[in-house]
Amino acid sequence: MHYNYRYGGGKKIKFVRFLFKGEKYYGLLKKDRVIPIKGDPFSGWEEDGSKTYSVADVKFLAPCQPSKIIAVGLNYYDHARELNMEIPEEPVIFLKPPTSVIGPEDYIILPEQSGRVDYEAELAVVIQKEARNVSHEIAKDVILGYTCGNDITARDLQKKDGQWTRAKSFDTFLPLGPVISDEFKPGSGRIELKVDGEVKQGSNTDQMIFDVYDLVVFISGIMTLKPGDVIITGTPGGIGPLKENSKVEVYIEGIGNLVNYTKRGD
Amino acid sequence: MHYNYRYGGGKKIKFVRFLFKGEKYYGLLKKDRVIPIKGDPFSGWEEDGSKTYSVADVKFLAPCQPSKIIAVGLNYYDHARELNMEIPEEPVIFLKPPTSVIGPEDYIILPEQSGRVDYEAELAVVIQKEARNVSHEIAKDVILGYTCGNDITARDLQKKDGQWTRAKSFDTFLPLGPVISDEFKPGSGRIELKVDGEVKQGSNTDQMIFDVYDLVVFISGIMTLKPGDVIITGTPGGIGPLKENSKVEVYIEGIGNLVNYTKRGD
Repeated sequence: MHYNYRYGGGKKIKFVRFLFKGEKYYGLLKKDRVIPIKGDPFSGWEEDGSKTYSVADVKFLAPCQPSKIIAVGLNYYDHARELNMEIPEEPVIFLKPPTSVIGPEDYIILPEQSGRVDYEAELAVVIQKEARNVSHEIAKDVILGYTCGNDITARDLQKKDGQWTRAKSFDTFLPLGPVISDEFKPGSGRIELKVDGEVKQGSNTDQMIFDVYDLVVFISGIMTLKPGDVIITGTPGGIGPLKENSKVEVYIEGIGNLVNYTKRGD
Repeated sequence: MHYNYRYGGGKKIKFVRFLFKGEKYYGLLKKDRVIPIKGDPFSGWEEDGSKTYSVADVKFLAPCQPSKIIAVGLNYYDHARELNMEIPEEPVIFLKPPTSVIGPEDYIILPEQSGRVDYEAELAVVIQKEARNVSHEIAKDVILGYTCGNDITARDLQKKDGQWTRAKSFDTFLPLGPVISDEFKPGSGRIELKVDGEVKQGSNTDQMIFDVYDLVVFISGIMTLKPGDVIITGTPGGIGPLKENSKVEVYIEGIGNLVNYTKRGD
């Protein structure tokens, strides 16, 4: 086992989780092939070269299974401007439940309780190792990599409750994926959201008010981060509503394209 | 295995989790003895009578390991009166992270980021089985039982942030225990909080605005509840601050006494 690929020479790695014939695996995405790994990206792994799969033959899952998801409000300068909000002095955080997580190609269910459900494209940080009171110097070392997230939000319930939790906690309200990239440079990367092919959000992670290392420092000063935990880092300008039977895509340069579909709840 | 003790004749059961010589077990508390169980309270269990322990020889742990903790704001009439708040039409929910959970006798760490950390005695509901869109008729059937909780809150940060998450998410901010009681009747039970022996909160669960079944219906209409998940149901009047080196007790009639201590963070 390579107990930490960072010291094992690995570079430009894209971790995936996938389903094949009813079994779930971690693996690596290499072009159009998926190579299973023994172990997992957090505690140690090595390639299992005995078989590989075509991407066409597997179902991609959310690339990790977080024990908690910490989200950040109002963290893009362009989004703060569109809302006429002051720039916050400290991050404002909230939590989303693990039951909100879905994977690529899964359906976002628009619940009957809400009359307006919004997309929010976000860069998602995946934690590699347990971390508490992390300093800026080592913040990078507790991060496994980055994936795309969509912080689906029932905007009407968010306003009604004051607290954001209900609005952001419905099942299916956190699409994640498709890969965890370790080569992404979080300081600058194009981030886009499209609905049915039309660009609705287009920005760059260089617009973040608190960068990902700031957030790891701030959050790990409050609560212990665990392997696989996820920090979603706020959404850029251009938020808006989703209708049923739509295709929603979060694209982040250097990571990939997270595609989901919408439908009405039963 | 008795796959559901409710149909197996079990009554007046008090589940515990405990540590003995470095190993963790589920068990039953009977007077001053702890009887280990095979299996767990959620998927099926039977007594393992081959050995029993004195309560003096074991360390009690939080009685379950929730994948999520859903908390309810402002849910006691007496607390709403003391805050001059209107009675809410719907529950306002928030989440606490699994990393906030501690067990009986553990220390509540007062973090340096806060100048005022409050106790909040709460009845905690432990979910037995996966549940989504539960009706009032069957809400009772998805509940394993009840335990004591203390929704520790950094009051100054709660006010500063507007969102309550940071204030309620520090490590050690959710003492739970000591037992999960299946005989507790949630509609009426004395609830008290003492600091260093002095009663600070004294009320009854009959003061709840939304009862536990209302809450299971409301929350399971938003998110899927999982076995071991916990709902903390709001605190009665009399909230106030904790100092370091204090003993804090949550007592709920028919469940027991949850004792913790406070100390300053490093």
